[in-house]
Amino acid sequence: MTLYMIGIGLNDEKDITLKGLEAVKKASYVFLENYTSKLQVPVEKLQSFYGKKIVLADRNMVEKKADIILDKAVENEVAFLVVGDVFGATTHTDLFLRAKEKKIKVNIINNASILNSIGIVGLELYKFGKTTSLPYPEDNFKPETAYDVIKSNQEAGLHTLVLLDIKPDRNMTVNEAIKILLEIEHKRKEKVFTKDVKIVGCARIGGDYKIKYGTASELEKEDFGEPLHCIIIPGKLHFVEEEVLETWK
Amino acid sequence: MTLYMIGIGLNDEKDITLKGLEAVKKASYVFLENYTSKLQVPVEKLQSFYGKKIVLADRNMVEKKADIILDKAVENEVAFLVVGDVFGATTHTDLFLRAKEKKIKVNIINNASILNSIGIVGLELYKFGKTTSLPYPEDNFKPETAYDVIKSNQEAGLHTLVLLDIKPDRNMTVNEAIKILLEIEHKRKEKVFTKDVKIVGCARIGGDYKIKYGTASELEKEDFGEPLHCIIIPGKLHFVEEEVLETWK
Repeated sequence: MTLYMIGIGLNDEKDITLKGLEAVKKASYVFLENYTSKLQVPVEKLQSFYGKKIVLADRNMVEKKADIILDKAVENEVAFLVVGDVFGATTHTDLFLRAKEKKIKVNIINNASILNSIGIVGLELYKFGKTTSLPYPEDNFKPETAYDVIKSNQEAGLHTLVLLDIKPDRNMTVNEAIKILLEIEHKRKEKVFTKDVKIVGCARIGGDYKIKYGTASELEKEDFGEPLHCIIIPGKLHFVEEEVLETWK
Repeated sequence: MTLYMIGIGLNDEKDITLKGLEAVKKASYVFLENYTSKLQVPVEKLQSFYGKKIVLADRNMVEKKADIILDKAVENEVAFLVVGDVFGATTHTDLFLRAKEKKIKVNIINNASILNSIGIVGLELYKFGKTTSLPYPEDNFKPETAYDVIKSNQEAGLHTLVLLDIKPDRNMTVNEAIKILLEIEHKRKEKVFTKDVKIVGCARIGGDYKIKYGTASELEKEDFGEPLHCIIIPGKLHFVEEEVLETWK
């Protein structure tokens, strides 16, 4: 039958599109990928609003046991829900490929993701360079990828969106991200992310958002509240972009 | 009162979110920005589905006469609809700013845009560099910006999304875009966009899509059908990305 891959947006149960909801209503099985992003509401709220039982699909199920999902889609209508948009993570591309290999019809229903919703801060979306993510450093794993991406985007005058780590038990805050990036700066000393660099701190984009523009040391003290958070390091600014950023001071 | 800025997605009347539709139903005035992008269905279809009269807002209204919209929003609920997502164009940021200056409450309701929906081709969204657009060349205006952006993204190993010109009377096809880029290559001779460069041609992303992967000279002969079209020049490919692209040959 059909595998519906459905973006459900960033905030709550009403961010699904009408087309997406129609597909959920038709589906015999509904899965929610729950490890690459998170809504602002619990899954129970989705279940009661959609009127469907939702099976949570963790990384292990989506990456290693995708046949649980695909086998059902051979003879049933199956909805696979993704917070944000469908192809934010490469594993979803893999699911798409494997469904096509099994001759399952795949129907994509798109939605907002952080990559476009971040436009609210007033920076031109076309002028973002590569996107990066910042993981919590571990004793034996302190990646500096985010720092390198910010650096190369800066050199090209482009903005950098830094997505912050999401763990089952904690979500990285703007404050933690700044601290981690300042530590990398302290080590590398390439003046890519200093205390004086002006950045945009964001929380709950697509919902009850908070946006603040200021230096890294100013924003390190700011309380952004509930997750999810992200930060932007602006590149070369057009005067309209500057004007909007000033409104978030 | 409130200005609702609502992304309505890429394809048809059912791509609006439930939250977006609720806002439209509440609004006393509904505007549709109709010059930066186009749906696959006529405005009449939106009107009958939403049960609302829709006023088309052309570039002149949005950029020069925005007070027509803002003045109504001082005392009424006003919905401003945008194809794709809300902040695809800088003029919408300007409208947002001016509404805030007038102390109008602004409520943003996001949706899919080409910037995330393009993920369906299987290229990692994080690895796209700057986005560019390709206008129809005119006698006294033959911009080479797209060529320069492709070049600098290529040097950084990043993918380039090239959005194609949308005019009231015609929409640029993949075939026209390839022809224009090959002409710039012929002049510049920097081997950025040759006949042999492998690209992805796309049409109607977010709806009844067609995607083809091949060399510029192969795709120049391909019929992609109805608008809107766009092209992608892939950067350095991960093996999963290559595997997906092969399925579009």
